[in-house]
Amino acid sequence: MLNFSFHCPTLFAFGDGEEQRTGELVRRFGGTKVLLVYGGGSIFKNGAYDDAAASLNRAGIPFVELGGVQPNPRSGKVYEGIGLCRAEGVDFVLAVGGGSAIDTAKAIAVGTLYEGDFWDFYTHKAADKSLPVGVVLTLSATGSEASPSTVITHENGDLKWGNVKTDVYRPVFAVMNPRYTCSLPPYQTACGAMDMLSHVMERYFTTTDHVDVTDRICEGLMQTILSNALKAMENPDDYNARAELMWCGTLAHNNLCGVGRAQDWASHQMSHELSALYDSAHGATLSVITPAWMQYVLHRDPQRFAQFAVRVFGCQMDFHHPELTAQEGIERLKHWIRAMGLPLTLKEIGALQDDIPAMVAHRMKKPGGFPFGGFAPIHETDMALILELAAR
Amino acid sequence: MLNFSFHCPTLFAFGDGEEQRTGELVRRFGGTKVLLVYGGGSIFKNGAYDDAAASLNRAGIPFVELGGVQPNPRSGKVYEGIGLCRAEGVDFVLAVGGGSAIDTAKAIAVGTLYEGDFWDFYTHKAADKSLPVGVVLTLSATGSEASPSTVITHENGDLKWGNVKTDVYRPVFAVMNPRYTCSLPPYQTACGAMDMLSHVMERYFTTTDHVDVTDRICEGLMQTILSNALKAMENPDDYNARAELMWCGTLAHNNLCGVGRAQDWASHQMSHELSALYDSAHGATLSVITPAWMQYVLHRDPQRFAQFAVRVFGCQMDFHHPELTAQEGIERLKHWIRAMGLPLTLKEIGALQDDIPAMVAHRMKKPGGFPFGGFAPIHETDMALILELAAR
Repeated sequence: MLNFSFHCPTLFAFGDGEEQRTGELVRRFGGTKVLLVYGGGSIFKNGAYDDAAASLNRAGIPFVELGGVQPNPRSGKVYEGIGLCRAEGVDFVLAVGGGSAIDTAKAIAVGTLYEGDFWDFYTHKAADKSLPVGVVLTLSATGSEASPSTVITHENGDLKWGNVKTDVYRPVFAVMNPRYTCSLPPYQTACGAMDMLSHVMERYFTTTDHVDVTDRICEGLMQTILSNALKAMENPDDYNARAELMWCGTLAHNNLCGVGRAQDWASHQMSHELSALYDSAHGATLSVITPAWMQYVLHRDPQRFAQFAVRVFGCQMDFHHPELTAQEGIERLKHWIRAMGLPLTLKEIGALQDDIPAMVAHRMKKPGGFPFGGFAPIHETDMALILELAAR
Repeated sequence: MLNFSFHCPTLFAFGDGEEQRTGELVRRFGGTKVLLVYGGGSIFKNGAYDDAAASLNRAGIPFVELGGVQPNPRSGKVYEGIGLCRAEGVDFVLAVGGGSAIDTAKAIAVGTLYEGDFWDFYTHKAADKSLPVGVVLTLSATGSEASPSTVITHENGDLKWGNVKTDVYRPVFAVMNPRYTCSLPPYQTACGAMDMLSHVMERYFTTTDHVDVTDRICEGLMQTILSNALKAMENPDDYNARAELMWCGTLAHNNLCGVGRAQDWASHQMSHELSALYDSAHGATLSVITPAWMQYVLHRDPQRFAQFAVRVFGCQMDFHHPELTAQEGIERLKHWIRAMGLPLTLKEIGALQDDIPAMVAHRMKKPGGFPFGGFAPIHETDMALILELAAR
């Protein structure tokens, strides 16, 4: 086990009805005037907007609004929010929605207290202070409600993508009513489940020895996500399945699963390239890339992949040929991806096999470039071969 | 799944060498003068005292000391500590040790800011503020390093035992170097492992439906504790086994395992009675009581006990007779208890079968009295019959 620091001070108020505590929680964490950050219309349909506004009103906390945050949120909304916070004397940022609203709120909260350009924090500067951020979660996927990360795309010229991670970005509270997620379209439910599954897998596939308890927690989360995602697809109003998914989404990415071990993140890196080039949902590019990555790196540690197959999917261990058990685990994962209605091939997300060199070249232009991945270093050729596997 | 609140803001600095951050962490959480609280001589032998003092000195933070805290810590030391804090202008309480030092530090930290008798908080008042408490952990057992609980015994006349639980008592940081625990005597290692196992089991045996992910996390922790405790007994210097146990001890009692579900705690209640009457270690009374409690309540939900047997001990499910599988789980637990060198019968902790009525009567005198237990309500007769089972 490696040394680690873990600090997740977020207060979770979980369950149907807990949204009524929103105003009280804002006050508890020092808020007297709020910027309410949200995306499109879904929070008006599922009631989250009305509930949050009513709770703030009951607590006597005034608020201003910043709506219209897009998926893969852009810097424009961040600048707009920082301006609003300063003009209106806002001291608390409340995100109502999913990862895009939350990541925007985090950037605004840090940027408001900084004299320079907030984008500095997404390139070279470490943030050391922030307005408090609260969350009313309406989507189980990114885990941003308790994570130290925020991802923003900058709009000047070609799109640059900034991903930062430090505990300053952890929200002070997250109100989590699984009921809000019952009205999600099936495809979004599926993409969210794939995203949280991947957050666990990126941590699970490790080169670190002696990681018993985090292995077990990862396996428990994966089993829970796999079974409850199918239940939520079958019956969108299944509160308990939605609740399991919502709590798993948080634990999958607050780093409980990742402490004391090297992590991988190669599938996320490649998925981001695909999402950028083909405007495909993050969960959908993950479902294409992940099994291909597994297939490609399996030989580096067949025993770990066999452990995944046995403990997560209940496969029988072939003690003489662990690589066969490992292979069975990958097939079972693909079967689940299909059952969830998610894509498995490049073609299904509109990517062409002929474009593979362009995808690799696109990645090459990024700072960091190659190699990436903690479990197995992925160089240019490796990425091309993984994408070839995903093309079949 | 039930609604829940979960708030564990403790910062964990985990691993060999992290103790050097102690002074820096005290400063980060606002400490400028420290009360160092500890027990007997073990922290002088394992180096924890010297390391903490050196780190505080390096950070330029002055400290005063309160040593000699006993197991099952008493109110006398708390009053002494409160006096010291006030006289010396202390603004941070640092516990170096295990549960007793930590629980004493928590009581002092709350009591220092209160004009009345700190004991009020252990009887009828809810604490709402506290000096910050930090921990340098040297023993894996109680989980007090991140829990919202503190247990103190009052010394006036007959001993009264106060157990409180509120987030105000969560330490702000815990420095956790598993190396410190390598020098523990085997019996103390065993008792600690039984204590943390029980903290999980008290949460695992529930009447709440749809608790998939917490079930899985509980099972993962139990499996990790069972296997690594045996490794630590076999080879006390096994750093990785010590590390697994130390992190499990924290997660077993910070309530990650207990959110969203009804909990039991009957075995802990009965164990406290035995510890009080026979001055036996908490872990040893738990190892006597727990299998007897399981045997007695098994019929209320054989499927849950069978799940425990299958998932934690790898028993084969007997689908026609789940109660047989359940029974096998209890036998496997007893086998582990024996392998750990822990007692299984009243006689081994010096208790007589003839004293059972006195034990029940002792419990009767407590506020709350009977029934207790969330999984199955335990009345006077039930407690007597459970103790009878433990007498065999």
